Amino acid sequence: MRIDKERIQEKNQKDLKPHQEKFDFLSNYLLKDGHDVVEIINKLSKFQVAIPSWALGAGGTRFGRFSFQGEPSTLEQKIDDVGILHALTQTAGAISLHIPWDVPKDYEAIKQLATSHNIVFDAVNSNTFQDQKNAKESYRFGSLSNREKAIREQAVQHNIDVIDIGNKLGSKSLTVWLADGSNFPGQNNFQNALQNTQDSLKDIYRALPEDWKLFIEYKPYEPNFYSTVIQDWGTSFMLANECGDRAYTLVDLGHHLPNTNIEQIVATLMMKGKLGGFHFNDSKYGDDDITVGSIKPYALFLIFNELVYGMNNNPQNPYPAWMIDASHNIKDPLEDLIQSLEAIQESYAKALLIDQDQLRLAQMENDVVRCQEILQNAYRTDVRPLLQEARRKSGGALSPLNTYRSLKVRENLIQARGKNSVASGL
Amino acid sequence: MRIDKERIQEKNQKDLKPHQEKFDFLSNYLLKDGHDVVEIINKLSKFQVAIPSWALGAGGTRFGRFSFQGEPSTLEQKIDDVGILHALTQTAGAISLHIPWDVPKDYEAIKQLATSHNIVFDAVNSNTFQDQKNAKESYRFGSLSNREKAIREQAVQHNIDVIDIGNKLGSKSLTVWLADGSNFPGQNNFQNALQNTQDSLKDIYRALPEDWKLFIEYKPYEPNFYSTVIQDWGTSFMLANECGDRAYTLVDLGHHLPNTNIEQIVATLMMKGKLGGFHFNDSKYGDDDITVGSIKPYALFLIFNELVYGMNNNPQNPYPAWMIDASHNIKDPLEDLIQSLEAIQESYAKALLIDQDQLRLAQMENDVVRCQEILQNAYRTDVRPLLQEARRKSGGALSPLNTYRSLKVRENLIQARGKNSVASGL
Amino acid sequence: MRIDKERIQEKNQKDLKPHQEKFDFLSNYLLKDGHDVVEIINKLSKFQVAIPSWALGAGGTRFGRFSFQGEPSTLEQKIDDVGILHALTQTAGAISLHIPWDVPKDYEAIKQLATSHNIVFDAVNSNTFQDQKNAKESYRFGSLSNREKAIREQAVQHNIDVIDIGNKLGSKSLTVWLADGSNFPGQNNFQNALQNTQDSLKDIYRALPEDWKLFIEYKPYEPNFYSTVIQDWGTSFMLANECGDRAYTLVDLGHHLPNTNIEQIVATLMMKGKLGGFHFNDSKYGDDDITVGSIKPYALFLIFNELVYGMNNNPQNPYPAWMIDASHNIKDPLEDLIQSLEAIQESYAKALLIDQDQLRLAQMENDVVRCQEILQNAYRTDVRPLLQEARRKSGGALSPLNTYRSLKVRENLIQARGKNSVASGL
Amino acid sequence: MRIDKERIQEKNQKDLKPHQEKFDFLSNYLLKDGHDVVEIINKLSKFQVAIPSWALGAGGTRFGRFSFQGEPSTLEQKIDDVGILHALTQTAGAISLHIPWDVPKDYEAIKQLATSHNIVFDAVNSNTFQDQKNAKESYRFGSLSNREKAIREQAVQHNIDVIDIGNKLGSKSLTVWLADGSNFPGQNNFQNALQNTQDSLKDIYRALPEDWKLFIEYKPYEPNFYSTVIQDWGTSFMLANECGDRAYTLVDLGHHLPNTNIEQIVATLMMKGKLGGFHFNDSKYGDDDITVGSIKPYALFLIFNELVYGMNNNPQNPYPAWMIDASHNIKDPLEDLIQSLEAIQESYAKALLIDQDQLRLAQMENDVVRCQEILQNAYRTDVRPLLQEARRKSGGALSPLNTYRSLKVRENLIQARGKNSVASGL
Repeated sequence: MRIDKERIQEKNQKDLKPHQEKFDFLSNYLLKDGHDVVEIINKLSKFQVAIPSWALGAGGTRFGRFSFQGEPSTLEQKIDDVGILHALTQTAGAISLHIPWDVPKDYEAIKQLATSHNIVFDAVNSNTFQDQKNAKESYRFGSLSNREKAIREQAVQHNIDVIDIGNKLGSKSLTVWLADGSNFPGQNNFQNALQNTQDSLKDIYRALPEDWKLFIEYKPYEPNFYSTVIQDWGTSFMLANECGDRAYTLVDLGHHLPNTNIEQIVATLMMKGKLGGFHFNDSKYGDDDITVGSIKPYALFLIFNELVYGMNNNPQNPYPAWMIDASHNIKDPLEDLIQSLEAIQESYAKALLIDQDQLRLAQMENDVVRCQEILQNAYRTDVRPLLQEARRKSGGALSPLNTYRSLKVRENLIQARGKNSVASGL
Repeated sequence: MRIDKERIQEKNQKDLKPHQEKFDFLSNYLLKDGHDVVEIINKLSKFQVAIPSWALGAGGTRFGRFSFQGEPSTLEQKIDDVGILHALTQTAGAISLHIPWDVPKDYEAIKQLATSHNIVFDAVNSNTFQDQKNAKESYRFGSLSNREKAIREQAVQHNIDVIDIGNKLGSKSLTVWLADGSNFPGQNNFQNALQNTQDSLKDIYRALPEDWKLFIEYKPYEPNFYSTVIQDWGTSFMLANECGDRAYTLVDLGHHLPNTNIEQIVATLMMKGKLGGFHFNDSKYGDDDITVGSIKPYALFLIFNELVYGMNNNPQNPYPAWMIDASHNIKDPLEDLIQSLEAIQESYAKALLIDQDQLRLAQMENDVVRCQEILQNAYRTDVRPLLQEARRKSGGALSPLNTYRSLKVRENLIQARGKNSVASGL
Repeated sequence: MRIDKERIQEKNQKDLKPHQEKFDFLSNYLLKDGHDVVEIINKLSKFQVAIPSWALGAGGTRFGRFSFQGEPSTLEQKIDDVGILHALTQTAGAISLHIPWDVPKDYEAIKQLATSHNIVFDAVNSNTFQDQKNAKESYRFGSLSNREKAIREQAVQHNIDVIDIGNKLGSKSLTVWLADGSNFPGQNNFQNALQNTQDSLKDIYRALPEDWKLFIEYKPYEPNFYSTVIQDWGTSFMLANECGDRAYTLVDLGHHLPNTNIEQIVATLMMKGKLGGFHFNDSKYGDDDITVGSIKPYALFLIFNELVYGMNNNPQNPYPAWMIDASHNIKDPLEDLIQSLEAIQESYAKALLIDQDQLRLAQMENDVVRCQEILQNAYRTDVRPLLQEARRKSGGALSPLNTYRSLKVRENLIQARGKNSVASGL
Repeated sequence: MRIDKERIQEKNQKDLKPHQEKFDFLSNYLLKDGHDVVEIINKLSKFQVAIPSWALGAGGTRFGRFSFQGEPSTLEQKIDDVGILHALTQTAGAISLHIPWDVPKDYEAIKQLATSHNIVFDAVNSNTFQDQKNAKESYRFGSLSNREKAIREQAVQHNIDVIDIGNKLGSKSLTVWLADGSNFPGQNNFQNALQNTQDSLKDIYRALPEDWKLFIEYKPYEPNFYSTVIQDWGTSFMLANECGDRAYTLVDLGHHLPNTNIEQIVATLMMKGKLGGFHFNDSKYGDDDITVGSIKPYALFLIFNELVYGMNNNPQNPYPAWMIDASHNIKDPLEDLIQSLEAIQESYAKALLIDQDQLRLAQMENDVVRCQEILQNAYRTDVRPLLQEARRKSGGALSPLNTYRSLKVRENLIQARGKNSVASGL
């Protein structure tokens, strides 16, 4: 299934007038305050977020999994789903594959399909947290960190295979996330596990094409765990340094202990040129993987403040890979992703409205009250007209969610795919 | 010192035109969406938050205390400071006294002074967490919960004295906050401490005038503590039920363990008719007592959603007593309070914009995506024009902070009071 | 499969002499310190913990489930497994069933089987967090709290059915644990959800036989959640009070926010006569459901201190129902349960060694140092000889784990049941 | 005041016989299990922990400070107090000074006094979290991280002065702990603050004598804070690497977010040769600075497991500097320190009892159950006879706390120093 640009334009019609009014009114005041609205719209348009293939179906819980009707069950259908998202939002111009869930059969056909949707292949993700059918070795007691060489080698080889697959599709980076760790004190020798992980990552790094990057994810815990091998940004940063220049830390919003100051981690990594990728989601209690911006939108804004600062001031840091890493248990996954994309763009737009010069000045003067005012002034601005304008100019929907519903996308998908289709993977 | 209404109007002049434009533009769209803007403005105007006398000076830390120049050193000066806040914001029409820091000498004069500022006396606060000079007994090992009867009696009597003082000023409620607890396992017998606390609170309750309310605050911990006697809302609720109909739980935003869902606590208490008071502040890590809305404004909005719902649907719950309970270490306390008041009004205004009928409908249909949209639609609205209009109509400043600065209030206070004045209390 | 008492005695033989030496040496010193060792051994022997049927197989994770070979696949086999545990440890004399996973076909045969193992049927557990095949209504959006009457009625009826089943087996209590809640702000109306939960619980309570108790469990969150309907002990306590005298709160160790002082909750509930049941497990980060005592054994000891105090001083509180609620992903479930039972007995024994009279005295004198010494003196004692003696006297194994291994229990189970048996349920 | 060795021996007399019995009984079994008891006793005797000068008086809270009678008010008296601790425990053979609270007047006299107590001077601590009288610049907005060069230079110079003072006393390391950070989002530019901190630390490092080490402490938050400049071990590790080979991370137990796996941090740092120092204390909620081992003794044991492993297997890591960093609000500080020293020695002794060979073997076999058994077997052993024996052989007290009390040390100190002496510093 594919959404016609014309259908979107049709649906936009009735909202065009109020949009124009709101946009003009807002632009006018922003211009007076010295903002370059054209440039902001431009930046919003260019900001593209990868959709992971696994986010297009319903997520699992330990009690079971309610599948959502019309889920994509093939890689082609997943690309189609991202195509729908991108047509509507114009900000989902990339897909992030998960191997072995998404191994293409016909690479050329897959690439053409993606191109037809205007979608590129972002970072590829390996999977050594589940045993694959017919796999010789089990990851029950770890993969890259495992005590046994044969198991580590299998896990390293899998990552190299993933690179090969990604390479054929045009990906330029590999994301490694490990569920390695221990469930009980004493189970693991921390130093050996870390050394093994470091050695395995170096092996993978050596297989990396020259124009590729390696992203090393961290996470403090999984349910039932006592420790994880890469528990925090410090460990990931250390490992990335050991690997080499093209190895980077990847920050996932949900992978932090309670109360962590994530924006400061982002700032530190960008200053050191080591922020490679960023996974968006939100959470109330732990790694809840719920819709971006649904719980702590101000924290997201503060993070974007650092990201914008880093992109402007840290040439030593590459342009980060953006991805949504969420799980959908009770929402239509595509609707959830539309909401996430909106929240990301909103935070980015607000961060772009921060008067950086004034902020530096207030900071120099230790005028803490004014520092806060400057941030809040940007945050309190209703930036939705800017987002709509950016989408409108790119041919997207003024209101992606409403258009999605009024075009009856889910109903069409169900009709085409059936009620019991199941996304491969989790 | 006192701010002339005329001076405020003068300062408003230059911002009046843009304000009117923004307000008209916003109102127009809100009206189209079915909102009663007049009613919203009306509600905002009526919403008054008490300023605690101790928030007008700099707070202490365990390393020391940087006092802020021009601090109020008498009760009269504290009332003047609240008068300044109220003149500017029109939302600080009450002061909350702390005894023994604020014992009036001449009650009539104090009442007249407050009246002249249009300020009433809100809940009075007792202090049994510090030993007073010449006190017979020490609270080192607890006050209302103490093992020794004589100490409990002294603490109960102090509360009764506080009621008497409040009564003479027109207060109608007593807030009890305890630093009672233990620093080490085994130090306290939990059951005895709780029983003593319950008995002491009942003694205080018996002394309460018929038209008074008793507010019981809870808090999970203090630095260096292992336990507190009233650690959570459940304990406070239980104690309030034991005392009687006019005893209530008081919620302080900062007094919760990491990740607590505070809005649900608010909803539960209002449903049971037991939310008596609410203390505003914000925090990143613990009970940080920093400016309201400076860290988690969306959580504050969700709380206001419950408060608005409760005020509309829970006749069994009294109108809660609102107070800011913050501490100022590096900001001018009055500027900090202006920022806090703005954040409170902002959250309240946004909560008033939630389309409750649509929300109930979406909830009935289990349309989780739309539920979120409805909340976010309200939250994303820039409500500052509504706040400004509410202030303007009441004679306040369009921009309280700018006016405060341009009127050089702090400079005037320093001139009048000196650089080394110190607020009594902490 | 069944373990012969004689086989256990045989295995005990070689350890008897050192055991006797250690026990005599310890007893001697304990007697000098005024302890009644016979009484302690007696209490340890009487302390029986229920094993939940679902803990006998491997637990699930969101990524999959590694089943453990030789898992019990029928209710009969589950009872046999508990029989093995009880034969070895003499402290697992009860099983807690989960309906619909454990519906007996032949009640008499099941009862006889349990009796033959010396096992009784403890609290029965209902399940409204999963949809059952052929169920008319889905719990996707809640069960007892659901907006729709038909769904609530189905859930209430299920609980009544569970009571009936339990009644036929000799159970005397029903445990209700809900996964009801919401994943996003706005999804639920907190007050309605709580009111529905309360009404549903009352309906269940009305169906309770006169000699039964209702246990209401609480939990702050599940992965992916934003709120749960019964988030804390305060809510459970409130609901229990609304239901009536035979409704109680059930405390599960893992169901708390970070840093919660659980021992104080236990003390409060016992003082109010409302601690009905207790679920043992341990955790590092959240509700990890790992082996009891494997992470925070001192916290468990402090909790047992309160439990012992309450059992001695709170006639208003019934004798609590004890159960292990753990999940096993990488350990043999029976070995894990043996470790859990050992940790529970150890904590209980140490709590029995606390010199309560001296503790009260030190507390009265505010001698905080001595209070701590008294607790630590008990905790630092190596009580393993006491546990061994209690088991020996009851015919159990001196070292249950070693005996389990040397009797090759798992190997026998695999031979009897096969490698691919799967415990029904999760 | 000074405790005679003879007095201690006298007091030991009555406990000698039971001690010998218990020690013999335990040794006997340990020897059978293959432990080298003589070597363990030897290691315990050699393990010396520095006492910080500020822990000898009562700590402050934000509400006030209850001073303890007989507090040391001069450096000489502080050294005397450590002398008392060391005489009793034989494990407090070092003092850690805090400048400017402890600037000696007569260096030779001070050194002689310390030598007479058998005490050496451990790491010296600088203080840039408080403004000193007559200081030119204020640290209100930071010290080493401050935006203003003059302030940074003052802070750097202070650290250099501290090194000079320490050098004259025989110290070999400097500990830098910063309260630098921000109270509100936007107040600080994270990158600038980090860069300034790094540059300042390098300046200090350059002034370090060749045989000195620099310890960089980290801490996630202070009350009222939104961020700290060195928030975690990763930041400290990065800064230490930037400084050079003799710069190290210092771990303080209380300086971590909820649920942090500290033992893994210790293992990582030792593997990388960067664990320079360790501060002992304990906490229930945050940085509570309460008695070591009073809340989470098992976590302390797991940390010691890593420390012992690292000391045996990581020649790349220097021998760490040990210090107690606690605060005493309601206990006699000396009694509290005696309890802390006991808890440290206990954890160390238990860690020494872990059968490392068996543990490696069980780990290699993925026998998770046995791994846990091996740790718990060591932990459950009552090691107090080992501690007593180590002290006895060194001339210390079998029971330091009882001896302290029976010698009426505090009473003597009060008589000598008066009731109102106040420890300089906090």
